[in-house]
Amino acid sequence: MASPGLLTAQSVRIKQARRLATRAFRRKTGRFLAEGPQAVREALEHRELVLEVYAEPSVATRHRDLRDLAAAADVPWFDVDRAGAEALSETVTSQGVVAVCSLVDVSLEQAVLPTARLVAAGFQVRDPGNVGTLIRTADAAGADAVVLSTESVDPHNPKAVRASVGSIFHLPITVDADLATAATAWRAQGLQVLAADGYGTTDLDTCIDDGTLAKPTVWLFGNEAHGLPDGFDAFVDHSVKVPIYGRAESLNLATAAAICLYASARAQRR
Amino acid sequence: MASPGLLTAQSVRIKQARRLATRAFRRKTGRFLAEGPQAVREALEHRELVLEVYAEPSVATRHRDLRDLAAAADVPWFDVDRAGAEALSETVTSQGVVAVCSLVDVSLEQAVLPTARLVAAGFQVRDPGNVGTLIRTADAAGADAVVLSTESVDPHNPKAVRASVGSIFHLPITVDADLATAATAWRAQGLQVLAADGYGTTDLDTCIDDGTLAKPTVWLFGNEAHGLPDGFDAFVDHSVKVPIYGRAESLNLATAAAICLYASARAQRR
Repeated sequence: MASPGLLTAQSVRIKQARRLATRAFRRKTGRFLAEGPQAVREALEHRELVLEVYAEPSVATRHRDLRDLAAAADVPWFDVDRAGAEALSETVTSQGVVAVCSLVDVSLEQAVLPTARLVAAGFQVRDPGNVGTLIRTADAAGADAVVLSTESVDPHNPKAVRASVGSIFHLPITVDADLATAATAWRAQGLQVLAADGYGTTDLDTCIDDGTLAKPTVWLFGNEAHGLPDGFDAFVDHSVKVPIYGRAESLNLATAAAICLYASARAQRR
Repeated sequence: MASPGLLTAQSVRIKQARRLATRAFRRKTGRFLAEGPQAVREALEHRELVLEVYAEPSVATRHRDLRDLAAAADVPWFDVDRAGAEALSETVTSQGVVAVCSLVDVSLEQAVLPTARLVAAGFQVRDPGNVGTLIRTADAAGADAVVLSTESVDPHNPKAVRASVGSIFHLPITVDADLATAATAWRAQGLQVLAADGYGTTDLDTCIDDGTLAKPTVWLFGNEAHGLPDGFDAFVDHSVKVPIYGRAESLNLATAAAICLYASARAQRR
């Protein structure tokens, strides 16, 4: 039996919020879900983003600061029962708190300013965990923006949000970019475009040694299975491979991105 | 109805092989499963490891080289129907071929020789994907071995095997290591031990600049949620943080490992 005052999995509000697990409904409503105390905290620190919070009463007690942040920002707070929290959760075990937020993505022009020094761009990145990790790693490396191509996973996908561990709220993100057109524009405005590619014509160590990496850079990372399409070389300054010193066949996308972005971050600070 | 000559999900052999998804049965039998054409190919290149192969007939046709490799190594090859292949698969869509292999792990002394220059060690790494990615990244960085502590995920776990993308067959791996004891022994034999730690007392850039990273090194990577335990500092030479240039709260284990191992690989080659 439902406790009075607690929303349940059958409540209309919960059923509506739950639909935000699909991209179509997110785009239609302009909203997405951020789950777990840490993501909700980060979201509330950008108060204009958060529309409402759903939480189990025990979470409000345990994370008093969240309740206070929401109150200070006039964000409606709804108590939900366990089943209601589970209904809103992407994870096996709900962390008991979810924020409904406005989508964070901005236009390409707003994301990548003429002053940008380091940008991470993903081409048809299909795994939500990879999109989230790319955003987190770009944030850690001090990147100015993350750009995602058409046919990439939506960064507002619940698994991507979770994998970003709050970083989705930290730096400008743009979606549905045409990377060939964007690369041409970036190069015209003085940003070099480097494609991470296991079959690249130069390698990362060379780019560190010869000073290439010290320049303002957009890194392009290709699809998990197919990389960047044939012919993309025409749109980039260099196609760069991360050296494989052992016998691994290749590196995964998130690993290659971490190595490339951190190499740039270090080179730009020396 | 079962086609004659094809094993099915009900065949005793398939039911037995399927049990290798559990660690206890792997340890009891000394066997594990490597799934997919690429992993099976790598396994067959170490022919002494492969005990038998199960494949859908279409896979044998499509990957003729696998059939040839198995025949050359006198490895029994069994045809299975689709349901049989699915029963042996960890993935949603089976790739149609699985090898039953002998466990690859070796003793700590066999894994880390006195001549080792780069070793990756994981402490209580709980996610199979992280264990597999750590092995793959260590292999790519040219590491000599991977060491996993007690209470880490078994690298023979099907998800770990898959995430290693064949690298589980490329470098020596040891499991159930007591890392405090091992660290003491490594330091006595001239290997420095560096702990990757978000709260480290020095940072990676400093270790690159001052030459620390050029020395033979064992990197320790802690548990996903809790890192390395308090007091572990006593067993290491330095506790090193990967610098966070932006606002990310932290890096995930696989990302931090990629950055640290590649920084060492580069420093040792200059």
